[in-house]
Amino acid sequence: MIKHLVVVGVGLIGGSFALDLKRQGQVARVTGIGRSRANLETALERGIIDTIGDDLASAVASADLVMLAAPVGAMPALFAELAAVLPPDCIVTDAGSTKLDVIAAARAGLGARIGQFVPGHPIAGAETNGSAAARLGLYADKPYILTPLPENTPADMAIVESLWRGCGADVVRMDAALHDRVFAAVSHLPHLLAFALMDELASRPQAELYFRYAGAGLRDGTRIAGSHPEMWRDITLANRDALLEELDALTEKLKSMRALVAAKDGAALEQVFSRARQARNNWLQGKYND
Amino acid sequence: MIKHLVVVGVGLIGGSFALDLKRQGQVARVTGIGRSRANLETALERGIIDTIGDDLASAVASADLVMLAAPVGAMPALFAELAAVLPPDCIVTDAGSTKLDVIAAARAGLGARIGQFVPGHPIAGAETNGSAAARLGLYADKPYILTPLPENTPADMAIVESLWRGCGADVVRMDAALHDRVFAAVSHLPHLLAFALMDELASRPQAELYFRYAGAGLRDGTRIAGSHPEMWRDITLANRDALLEELDALTEKLKSMRALVAAKDGAALEQVFSRARQARNNWLQGKYND
Repeated sequence: MIKHLVVVGVGLIGGSFALDLKRQGQVARVTGIGRSRANLETALERGIIDTIGDDLASAVASADLVMLAAPVGAMPALFAELAAVLPPDCIVTDAGSTKLDVIAAARAGLGARIGQFVPGHPIAGAETNGSAAARLGLYADKPYILTPLPENTPADMAIVESLWRGCGADVVRMDAALHDRVFAAVSHLPHLLAFALMDELASRPQAELYFRYAGAGLRDGTRIAGSHPEMWRDITLANRDALLEELDALTEKLKSMRALVAAKDGAALEQVFSRARQARNNWLQGKYND
Repeated sequence: MIKHLVVVGVGLIGGSFALDLKRQGQVARVTGIGRSRANLETALERGIIDTIGDDLASAVASADLVMLAAPVGAMPALFAELAAVLPPDCIVTDAGSTKLDVIAAARAGLGARIGQFVPGHPIAGAETNGSAAARLGLYADKPYILTPLPENTPADMAIVESLWRGCGADVVRMDAALHDRVFAAVSHLPHLLAFALMDELASRPQAELYFRYAGAGLRDGTRIAGSHPEMWRDITLANRDALLEELDALTEKLKSMRALVAAKDGAALEQVFSRARQARNNWLQGKYND
């Protein structure tokens, strides 16, 4: 049982975490910290938090758990601030979409107290954001990836994992570098593509005409281009190296497909399309999931 | 009132067209023609068609409307076959996703009888296919684009348009070349991207691990990669020139975004993401739709 949880960034991710823990009686009191007063007031009205914290230092003084659910670009400053005020038995965890850079920020900020930081990533994004978007059950049957540090104690890891299990998440552990490569491929690259496609089409002189006839394919295919620009700026920069590799691989793939189109090689194109369709069907039928 | 409609290719598109017309009493009898006997039998059982045609020649002998809803690659052979057997007062129309090449195929096949062909494109695709996927109401509030020929009579165009209006579609007219450019951008390019992304990820040695953690963003973003490979092979080849232009534009866009990532230009990236998000919100709020 957590006596006092401090959530830094009470949005979809941090807010939904608090809601589930409160509902299940896993946390007694929640303080919210954030840049937007209006967002924190919504969180208060919705019962996501019990108090609005004035500043990080006074809020964490009595905390036994701090959840950092801010954009990853805000992490270095948060860790630096935490270092001076963090109670010795308080666990810090996060929900950042990238792990190597958050861990580096934690090491730089927390120094010798790095063992108190248990890094993790719940896989439950959406293109909605803010405390108004938070909801019970967001994490049910979604993966939660713990990327533990050598300095973490088994007891602290067990506490963090049991909270996420309480939210219904499927908890796994993964090396942080592997995590970042996997998510560069299956999440960060698709987001960049969706942003690129929307911005490209919107830049056309006839954009209005184009969008008038755009259908469900483009709508679903670019849903993630509705995601939060600042958050994705941070993720893009935080996972830069892995993302550049993914961008290059996809560019090569598009180049080879362009060559097939130019050469009118229908048989080879049909093969690519069939493989893609089969891979997607396998994935959705859980053939990649056991 | 159509006395005898022949649907060539009784799939999602052709089948749904027939279902709606029958329900509204706009057609007395429907004959289905296709390559797959099993698919036609499903169409018969579902009441989409009344008879399975043995061959195109005997089916169209008594037809007053022929709907070509086959993959666009099959169109040249169909028009060539129709030329010899088409009754003089029978209208031929199509539902092809590309127009310039279908029109070229029609000119080549039908010769002096080209005026009987009224080309069009209902915007209501899905990644499902076959007569099992056909359904009432598929075209409700969806655009139907007529790309008329100088040889078409106002009477024939009015008949085709009134049938689509009967299906609930919003009927508009557009130049065929413009149609092909618009759909290269808002449909064909996004499909190619989705196929490319899925095939690229599936080709990785660790694909199984990757897909285990892929979430809703990738699932929605690649929904159209579940589309019919043969149909999309045909569309890709049929609209080759416009699609190559779109591929090149997107490749340039990705190149410029790569440069921003490599240079860690967070401000410029956030600008691109914000513009993309705004454009998508405008589109979905109908700001491009009046």
